[in-house]
Amino acid sequence: MLGKLALPEIRELIEARDDATLGEVVNRWYPADLAELLSALAIDEQVHVLRFLQPQRAADTFAYLDLARQVDVLNALPQEEAAGLLNAMAPDDRTALLSELPAEEAGRLIGWLDPAERAVARALLDHDAESVGRLMTPDYVVVRREWTMRHVLDHVRTHGRDSETLNVIYVVDDQHRLIDDLRIREVLLAPLHTHVADLMDGECVHLVVTDDKKKAVEVFRKYDRTALPVVEANGRLAGIVTLDDVLDVAEEQATREIQRFGGLEALDDPYMSTPLPAMIRKRATWLIILFISEMLTATAMAQYQREIEKAVVLAVFIPLIISSGGNSGSQAATLIIRALALGEVKLRDWWRVLGRELFAGILLGLILGSIGFIRIATWHSLWGSYGPDWGLVGLTVSCSLVGVVVWGVLTGSMLPFLLKRLGFDPATSSAPFVATLVDVTGLVIYFSAALVILRGTLL
Amino acid sequence: MLGKLALPEIRELIEARDDATLGEVVNRWYPADLAELLSALAIDEQVHVLRFLQPQRAADTFAYLDLARQVDVLNALPQEEAAGLLNAMAPDDRTALLSELPAEEAGRLIGWLDPAERAVARALLDHDAESVGRLMTPDYVVVRREWTMRHVLDHVRTHGRDSETLNVIYVVDDQHRLIDDLRIREVLLAPLHTHVADLMDGECVHLVVTDDKKKAVEVFRKYDRTALPVVEANGRLAGIVTLDDVLDVAEEQATREIQRFGGLEALDDPYMSTPLPAMIRKRATWLIILFISEMLTATAMAQYQREIEKAVVLAVFIPLIISSGGNSGSQAATLIIRALALGEVKLRDWWRVLGRELFAGILLGLILGSIGFIRIATWHSLWGSYGPDWGLVGLTVSCSLVGVVVWGVLTGSMLPFLLKRLGFDPATSSAPFVATLVDVTGLVIYFSAALVILRGTLL
Repeated sequence: MLGKLALPEIRELIEARDDATLGEVVNRWYPADLAELLSALAIDEQVHVLRFLQPQRAADTFAYLDLARQVDVLNALPQEEAAGLLNAMAPDDRTALLSELPAEEAGRLIGWLDPAERAVARALLDHDAESVGRLMTPDYVVVRREWTMRHVLDHVRTHGRDSETLNVIYVVDDQHRLIDDLRIREVLLAPLHTHVADLMDGECVHLVVTDDKKKAVEVFRKYDRTALPVVEANGRLAGIVTLDDVLDVAEEQATREIQRFGGLEALDDPYMSTPLPAMIRKRATWLIILFISEMLTATAMAQYQREIEKAVVLAVFIPLIISSGGNSGSQAATLIIRALALGEVKLRDWWRVLGRELFAGILLGLILGSIGFIRIATWHSLWGSYGPDWGLVGLTVSCSLVGVVVWGVLTGSMLPFLLKRLGFDPATSSAPFVATLVDVTGLVIYFSAALVILRGTLL
Repeated sequence: MLGKLALPEIRELIEARDDATLGEVVNRWYPADLAELLSALAIDEQVHVLRFLQPQRAADTFAYLDLARQVDVLNALPQEEAAGLLNAMAPDDRTALLSELPAEEAGRLIGWLDPAERAVARALLDHDAESVGRLMTPDYVVVRREWTMRHVLDHVRTHGRDSETLNVIYVVDDQHRLIDDLRIREVLLAPLHTHVADLMDGECVHLVVTDDKKKAVEVFRKYDRTALPVVEANGRLAGIVTLDDVLDVAEEQATREIQRFGGLEALDDPYMSTPLPAMIRKRATWLIILFISEMLTATAMAQYQREIEKAVVLAVFIPLIISSGGNSGSQAATLIIRALALGEVKLRDWWRVLGRELFAGILLGLILGSIGFIRIATWHSLWGSYGPDWGLVGLTVSCSLVGVVVWGVLTGSMLPFLLKRLGFDPATSSAPFVATLVDVTGLVIYFSAALVILRGTLL
C-alpha cells in the first residue's frame, strides 16, 4: 500500500540522484512493500534501489519478488552483488528460486555462493522436487533435554540469530535425533529453573524429508502450526519447514486444481510467464479430448436425422436442452469437488449425496421444464411459431429438460466420487468434461422423449 | 492419523467402561487428533470421551470440531458442563461459533458464561459480522517502551498464559494506544538490559476493527505474519487476529469463489449442512438466468429453420460447434480469473492478454477445425454420410470452429477484465456463463458461414 502512494516520489529521488534521501526512505520500508515498489519500477531503477538497501533488507526484499523478476535482477547486477544477494537469502527461499531455473543456470548461480552456503544449497536441491526436502531450511535452534530454561534462553540469544523461526525450538539427543518440539510459549511461561525434559510431552508432529509437499500442506492445516520439523529416515533432524512456504505450495495446488476444473492441464508457471507454445499445448490436449468425445453428438444426431427432417422444430431446442444439462452438471460437480477437497464430504457419503442430488435434480428440472413450457406456449400464442402440435412440442421439451437436468446433476455429483475412488483427482471431472458427457446423453434423452410423445403427430 | 487407527480400540474402552485407561490414552492425544476421533464417534460416545479430557484439552478439542458437531455436543451435555466448555474456549473461537447460531440460541449460550467472559463475548459480537472485529481475541501481551528485556520476559512469564500467541508482543502507551509490535524473536535475541524502545522501528502493520475480513486476508498474505494487532478508530489496541482464523476466512472465500465459478450462488454452510431448500434456491437462481439467456439460442435457431430444412446435415454438427466455443471459453476464463485473483495479471494487462489469447484462439481453432474436417472426410469416405457436397460441409464446420473457438477464447478472457473493471467479482464469469454467451453467437457464426459457403449448393 505504501509502495503505490510513494512511487512518483521515489522515481523523482532516483532521477534527482538524491541517494542520501533515497537510502533513508527505502530503508524504513518493509520488505513486502519494497518488493511491491520494485515490481512497479524499470529494471535499472530496481537495481538502483536495491543498492541502497541494507544487505539483509535487500535479501528479504529480493525473496518477495516473483521468479521472473528475481532472474532479471540477478542478470542486471554485477556478479559480485548478485552473489551477495544469493548468499544472504534464506536457504529455503533460495531453493525455491534455484528449483525453477534450468539446471545450467542454477549451477552457474550455485557457483557464486560461498563454500558453506553452496554445500547447503546443493544438499537441499538433492531432494526430490516434489518432496518436503525442497521446502526445508537447515536454520533452526536445537536444545538438549537436560538444559534449564535459563540455559535455553541464553542459547537462543547467542545462537538464534540465523534461525528461520524462534516460535518453535527442537529437542534432539546426542545423535541429533528429534525427540520433541517446544513452542516458545512453553519456554517463556516456564520458571527459569525448569528443565527441558519437564516440558516434554514425548510426542512431536513431524514430517519426513521424502514426504510429498501435499502431505506438508495437510499436516499444517490439521495441526495449525507455524513450523514443523523434518527428519531423515533414521530420525535425525534435517531441517524445518515454515508456514509461509507451505502456504505457497497450497496456493500453487489450488491454482492447479482450479485450472484442471476449468478443463485444461495445469500450467507450470504464472499465466504471463508461460511461453505461448506450452500454454497452447496444455489447453489443446483437453480441448482435443473434449472435441473428440463431443463428436459422439454428431454420431447421435445422425441417427435422428430423419426425425429432424420431419420436425425441424425439434432442432431449434437442441442447444437449450443440452446446455441445461451441462449447467446443472457443472453446478453439482463444483459443489462436490470442493466439499471433497475440504473433507466436508467423504467417499462413504456418496449414497447420501446421491439422495440429495436426485431430489435437487428433479426439482430443478421441474423448474426449468415449466419455464420452457411457458416460453413455448407464449411464443406460440404470440406468433404461432410451433404449429398445431405446439402443446406436444412443449411437453417434449419440458420432459426432456427434467430428464437432462436430473441426469446432469447425477453425473456431475457422482463423477467426482468415482474419480476419487479410482485414485484420480476429482477436479478432473471439470465443468467442460461433465458438460460433454451430458451433451451426448442429453440428445438421446431428448429424441427418445420426442419419439414417444410426438409419435403419430409430428413424427 | 492417530484417530482412525485407534478407533476400534477406543470404542472397546468406552464399552468396557475402562475409564482409567480411556482417560490416560486420550489425554496424550493432540486436540486436532481428538477432534478427528470424536467426529467418527456417536454423540453419546463423544460426550463420554470429552468428560475424561483435562479441561483445557477438552476446550481445545471442542474448538476443532465443525459447527454442527459443536452444537450437538453442547445440546448433549448437561448445562453446567456445556458452560464449562464455553468458558474455557478461546474468545475468537467462541465468537466464530456464536456468530453462526441463530440470535436466540446464541443469547442462551452467552447467558451460561461467567460475567467476565460474557462481557468479552458480547463486545466481540458487537462488531459487524464481516469485520475484523469478529476475528479478534482480546488475549495478548502488552509491554511499555521503557521496560528492559529482562522485565519483558518476566512479564510474559507471569502474564502470558492466557495470551493467544506469544510469537508477537505489543508496545502501547499509557492510553493503551498501539505504538509498535515486537516479534518474540527480537526480544529473545536482544541482550537482557536492552530497552523496548531500542528495538522499536516506529512502524507497525495493523488492522482496524472495522476493516473487512477480506482486508485481513490480504494483509496477512502480503506481510507473511502469524498475528496482527487490531486497533480502534482512536488508535487504542482492541485485540489481535491470528493466522489460523484468517486462514479459515481465506478458505471460505476460496469456496465461495469456486462455487460462483461453477455457476451457482455461494452456499453459506458446508454442502452437507446446507438445508435442501436453501441449496436448491442458490442453484436455481443462476440456472434460471442461464436458461433464459440460453433461450436466445432457440430464437436464433428459429431464424435458420429454413436452412436446416434444406440441409438437415447442418443440424448434426450444432452441439459439436457450440460446445467447442464453450470449452475454449471456459479454459480462458479459468486462466484469467485465477491470474487476476493472484495478482499475476493486472487490469492494465488486458491488452497484452488480448494479444496472447487471440493468437492462442486462432491456433486452437485451426487444430479443432482440422480435426473436424478429417472426421467429416473419413466418415464420408467410409459411409458416404454427407452427400456429394461433403467437402463444402466440412469446410463450413472447420471455418465455424475457427470462428467459434476464437470468439470463445476472447469472450472467456476479456469478460473477467470487464467484470473486474465494473467492480464485480471476475469469478462471476463462470464456465456456464461464458458457455451460454458463446452458444448464441456460436450459432450465428455457424449459420453465417454456412450461408456463405453453401450458397448455390445445399442452401
